[in-house]
Amino acid sequence: MLRYLDVDPWKVVESGFHPERQRSSESIFSVGNGRFGQRANHEEHYSGDHLRGSYVGGVYYPDKTKVGWWKNGYPEYFAKVLNAPDWTSIRVQANGEELDLAQQTPRHFRRELDMLRGVLTRSFEATVGELHLSVKAQRFVSMADVETAHLRYSVDVLSGEGSVTLESILDGDVTNEDANWEERFWQTLEAGGDDVGGHLLVATRKTDFRVAHAMRSAAWFDGRSSESKSRSLSDGHAVLHEFTVEAGSRIVVDKTVALLRGMDHPADELLQRAQEKAGTAVDRGWNAALQDHMMAWERIWERADITIDGDEAAQQAIRFNIFHLNQTFTGDDPRLNIGPKGFTGEKYGGASYWDTEAYCLPFYLGTHPSGVAKQLLVYRRQHLERAIENAQKLGFEAGAALYPMVTMNGEECHNEWEITFEEIHRNGAMVYAIHNYIRYTGDEEYLAAGGWEVILGVARFWAQRVNWSEAKQAWVLLGVTGPNEYENNVNNNWYTNRLAAWCLRRACAALDWMKAHAPEELVHQNERWTFSEPDERPHWEAVMEGMYYPKLEGTRVFLQQDGFMDKEQTLVASLPQDQRPINQHWSWDRILRSVYIKQADTLQGFYFFEDEFDLETHRENFEFYEPRTVHESSLSPCVHVVLAAKLGLEEKAVEMYLRTARLDLDDYNNEAYQGLHITSMAGTWMSVVEGFGGFRVRDGVPHFTPMLPSAWKGYSFQLHFRGRQLQVVVDAEGTQVHLQSGEPLQVVIDGEAAHLT
Amino acid sequence: MLRYLDVDPWKVVESGFHPERQRSSESIFSVGNGRFGQRANHEEHYSGDHLRGSYVGGVYYPDKTKVGWWKNGYPEYFAKVLNAPDWTSIRVQANGEELDLAQQTPRHFRRELDMLRGVLTRSFEATVGELHLSVKAQRFVSMADVETAHLRYSVDVLSGEGSVTLESILDGDVTNEDANWEERFWQTLEAGGDDVGGHLLVATRKTDFRVAHAMRSAAWFDGRSSESKSRSLSDGHAVLHEFTVEAGSRIVVDKTVALLRGMDHPADELLQRAQEKAGTAVDRGWNAALQDHMMAWERIWERADITIDGDEAAQQAIRFNIFHLNQTFTGDDPRLNIGPKGFTGEKYGGASYWDTEAYCLPFYLGTHPSGVAKQLLVYRRQHLERAIENAQKLGFEAGAALYPMVTMNGEECHNEWEITFEEIHRNGAMVYAIHNYIRYTGDEEYLAAGGWEVILGVARFWAQRVNWSEAKQAWVLLGVTGPNEYENNVNNNWYTNRLAAWCLRRACAALDWMKAHAPEELVHQNERWTFSEPDERPHWEAVMEGMYYPKLEGTRVFLQQDGFMDKEQTLVASLPQDQRPINQHWSWDRILRSVYIKQADTLQGFYFFEDEFDLETHRENFEFYEPRTVHESSLSPCVHVVLAAKLGLEEKAVEMYLRTARLDLDDYNNEAYQGLHITSMAGTWMSVVEGFGGFRVRDGVPHFTPMLPSAWKGYSFQLHFRGRQLQVVVDAEGTQVHLQSGEPLQVVIDGEAAHLT
Repeated sequence: MLRYLDVDPWKVVESGFHPERQRSSESIFSVGNGRFGQRANHEEHYSGDHLRGSYVGGVYYPDKTKVGWWKNGYPEYFAKVLNAPDWTSIRVQANGEELDLAQQTPRHFRRELDMLRGVLTRSFEATVGELHLSVKAQRFVSMADVETAHLRYSVDVLSGEGSVTLESILDGDVTNEDANWEERFWQTLEAGGDDVGGHLLVATRKTDFRVAHAMRSAAWFDGRSSESKSRSLSDGHAVLHEFTVEAGSRIVVDKTVALLRGMDHPADELLQRAQEKAGTAVDRGWNAALQDHMMAWERIWERADITIDGDEAAQQAIRFNIFHLNQTFTGDDPRLNIGPKGFTGEKYGGASYWDTEAYCLPFYLGTHPSGVAKQLLVYRRQHLERAIENAQKLGFEAGAALYPMVTMNGEECHNEWEITFEEIHRNGAMVYAIHNYIRYTGDEEYLAAGGWEVILGVARFWAQRVNWSEAKQAWVLLGVTGPNEYENNVNNNWYTNRLAAWCLRRACAALDWMKAHAPEELVHQNERWTFSEPDERPHWEAVMEGMYYPKLEGTRVFLQQDGFMDKEQTLVASLPQDQRPINQHWSWDRILRSVYIKQADTLQGFYFFEDEFDLETHRENFEFYEPRTVHESSLSPCVHVVLAAKLGLEEKAVEMYLRTARLDLDDYNNEAYQGLHITSMAGTWMSVVEGFGGFRVRDGVPHFTPMLPSAWKGYSFQLHFRGRQLQVVVDAEGTQVHLQSGEPLQVVIDGEAAHLT
Repeated sequence: MLRYLDVDPWKVVESGFHPERQRSSESIFSVGNGRFGQRANHEEHYSGDHLRGSYVGGVYYPDKTKVGWWKNGYPEYFAKVLNAPDWTSIRVQANGEELDLAQQTPRHFRRELDMLRGVLTRSFEATVGELHLSVKAQRFVSMADVETAHLRYSVDVLSGEGSVTLESILDGDVTNEDANWEERFWQTLEAGGDDVGGHLLVATRKTDFRVAHAMRSAAWFDGRSSESKSRSLSDGHAVLHEFTVEAGSRIVVDKTVALLRGMDHPADELLQRAQEKAGTAVDRGWNAALQDHMMAWERIWERADITIDGDEAAQQAIRFNIFHLNQTFTGDDPRLNIGPKGFTGEKYGGASYWDTEAYCLPFYLGTHPSGVAKQLLVYRRQHLERAIENAQKLGFEAGAALYPMVTMNGEECHNEWEITFEEIHRNGAMVYAIHNYIRYTGDEEYLAAGGWEVILGVARFWAQRVNWSEAKQAWVLLGVTGPNEYENNVNNNWYTNRLAAWCLRRACAALDWMKAHAPEELVHQNERWTFSEPDERPHWEAVMEGMYYPKLEGTRVFLQQDGFMDKEQTLVASLPQDQRPINQHWSWDRILRSVYIKQADTLQGFYFFEDEFDLETHRENFEFYEPRTVHESSLSPCVHVVLAAKLGLEEKAVEMYLRTARLDLDDYNNEAYQGLHITSMAGTWMSVVEGFGGFRVRDGVPHFTPMLPSAWKGYSFQLHFRGRQLQVVVDAEGTQVHLQSGEPLQVVIDGEAAHLT
């Protein structure tokens, strides 16, 4: 843990200059709007260690994979989230010498992210040669008009002789740090500019994703507007506008950028539309654009804010998580999803993991109208055909679908055999998400609109992936990797077996619903997928009834996998601190052989299917597994908060909450420099709402069983539920649920029904 | 299977031009002498598909490894066998047009490898422009003087007008096809020449292995000798001699090459010594050098020949295998070992696998004085310290040694976790080889000379690698990969458990021998390795007594691993032919989940420890496992020949023998182009001698229980045994063992003792 940022309920503040934390700050202070995002790179040139990063949703590059030993079935490429052209650069020269904070240590450096308004501000003073400058930069990526971004950069020349030149740049000459073969991923199709505007049209190599940037730069000298000089840089990849200010004066440059994706506009109009968009935004003006943007954030906070009373660090943290989740995914485009690092870094390339279905969906269900979460389901429905192809590559037949572990466009792009081929529980998460969505929203019609098709493909996969064990006289799942990736290629991972059987049961239920409510659509879809209930359902039922589940004899504990008890049964408490995290200190071999668990595995099943087990079974399993869990995945603590809270284990719940909530703000694992843990932020929300708040939906009715951690005076959270807006307030007085808008609603609080009007 | 080569008892002959088989022929017709080796590249320029390959024993390059996902404990590099400077090139130009068999299709093309004499000859006619040429090339890599090679290249200009120019070249500008990052591995330190000689001094990058080549070229025109013109090529990497012959004449170029390794000579004399060596060889003359070389081969064949009467293809095949084994390893240098491809290709990089200990040792024990096989043990003793370092990297302590899966210098250089970290049975093979060597030679003194130290390090590894299973109340080995690499990360692989316990027992026996016969040396070595018998031996004994062995209830079958019976128990016979080999048709996932076995695994244990099991147990296990085995490793069939022969299963033994004996000659798996299966060739020898010949050494006495396959009239093999030379003749009349030299000896034939004088 390293707390170098100030604690504030609505702001993230870096006071003082921390060049050694520059990469982390670039991640933490990122701004985005679900369409594109930007790391908090300094506008001016910076020669110190940093990572330039500008990312456009849905744009990727199929980088040739690096692998030592090829296995049949591996994908040909790893989809990379691309570092896109840099629209933020403003180079500053004082009497020809470049402003570079790695060279001239700034004074009064301050960086502030206003989470309420979504605005990033940075200010500092620096001496370049004999000129003393005071600089202030402000930027926002508009939440109101998602194709625009705004940047205001001002320089006061406080003292000294001479002049300062600012260059407002649009730069297409960018690379990815994580390129496997050091290729350039972009090519510039057009770059040009005139006195008022500049433009850049770029395309990704291979995938030919097009992105058009249009920039307008306007300068005011001591409050008066001025003409700019513009020139194209010689390499043809960048355009810039140049302004000069004399000592003793003040210059403010407003940079307005439109960023349009080829996937949203006709190719032949893309650049022109970008230019028009930038022009319109300039005409409307900075203040009006900022106003629209702030109002959009206000609406978000109205539906999503969580207050925590009595613990300002916890308050800041939960807002930080909510803020970044909203910057990452807004649900207006079913081609987008939630990358583990969002728009804050290159790491993990592909945009979709099972994180989305298992950890992120509840957040978007609870804080937005249902259409937002639904986009996440539609995303997978769009990929169904490719999931079927993926399964075919591995030898499955007849419409079985295996969703990829990592993907941008539905194709698998990960290549560790023990993950790609074996961590197949992800496939069940697709069905669980549909179930979860319907349970929350009541929108059973979604089954007919795509849900059934996905469930069918996944059910067929499980039906083929099992085999009958003569020895066990049961159906088994051999050669799998569970959520606990510290075990590979195990037999009968309890979670996977349970999930597989549940998927088959859910498939039967979905089929029955379709027969009853959408018979014509069912006929149509069954034809399309060549599905015959009499041919396939009996096998599904046989498997779901006859599945094998490993158990620890004489207890209520389900065994993580066959042979788990052959391991040396030590506990995490006995691990020396200097050997943790074990993934940084132990050989892979030793990790695999150990009993230690990376993240919830058997307990993930208790999270998903809690109503299938009594409390004592919950407790025994939690008490067995949690002490063996090292929580070395950012997705681990949140599930444990929910389970611990349910079991009334306040101390454990709070310990786990602290590990998830300020993971990036306090950079617990020293990896914020790579980007933020976006998907685990949704887990933090889940920790508060489902964990401390004890929120569940049962039979269409919201239930609350809140717990108030003793360190907090109280907390409140918002829920959007089936057209209503609820506010839940928990404090020493008890729990209150307010219906803020919408139709009357029944809820259950601590087991007591209440009718809200 | 593809039989494009002629069958002949002593020769391998390619009649006719097969450019589509050029790479395969380059492998099959390779020549070498245990010190260096050369693929059968055409001397003249060849623009068709081919692989230039010249390899020098003990010289390697640590190529940076390519891996998608790094695991703690992975090695930093993969050692590559290097393609060394090319000493064979002779470029031919007719009136300025280059002779290139990819351009001018040759007539009467014939390539012949004389295995009796170790000479490669190639002849053809070709028309280049208007000149008709008859070309004959002969080469040998001397077995008598292992630092020299000889090449004679003659051109008859049969008709046409003009002249032909020959350039005799020494070329340092060479690359590896399998370079991970396309680096050049060599740098040229010196290249030069004069009218009679040329020289090249090169060094490997990073490792700085030095190799000096000295070349002498002499030409005769119609029988008269001639001065040569020499010039250095401009790029500084090559030297050449140039000769010109007029139409209607004949030219013969004798190219004599000395190849000296820096590891054998002082650095400052290396080049000079190479030049002297080449000069001496030239002075001695082609005929004398050839005579010495042929005599060396004659001595080899005297000790190693196997005759097979009544099956010329089998006769040719067994000699082909013996020939290449002798070209690969001669036992005069303990820094060398037996690469899976010998000197015939780049594939598999590193020189040592467990193939050496498990499959190759018997051949060298049986066909050479004991010093040759002993070098293979000394090789591993030299690497003991690095094996200890390797184990430390994985978290083992106190002198535990883990020998690498693949190595050149003792360091691990393979990086699939399921192999590198888990295929640890290789470690047991090190001890088995020492045991096997002592059993054969009676040289127990080797324990004091290094054997005990290796056994100790390996025993300590097993003692730490096991863990106590409370559930099983036994010692278990979790997370291993057995010889059957179609299973990864399994628990309690029977072969590995059995081998581990056997190693501990062998360690106790070795320790007892040391105490009785070399007590002072033992004290010295125990101090060196901080070994205390009272502290460690009780745990060894506990483990070897309390090891867990999976079994199939109600049978004598040992289970390959825990959970094996959960797999679908199908047999190879039910596999459609178009899905074989499964490693080319199935995803890795499907292979892993299937019951199919790549190579002997449980049965490898029956091969190693046959005397520990009764015949019925042998039979049940063979009948259980062989029908599940796809034999997709070249090392699989040979072990099955030995076991099938023991069980009297002639048909199975012959079927397996055919798969191993002509594997490369008939290119069964279409992979001879990569190089030959050198280590499996030793398995072929084992198939005849231990399989059909039923040869074993028990209590120092050779036992024979021969079987005569009905397709053969008879066969014979040679054995060098404790200073004697034996010939074993098996035919319809029965079995005869002749003592050809050495002291009288007792043997047992078909259970009957015989005294040979």
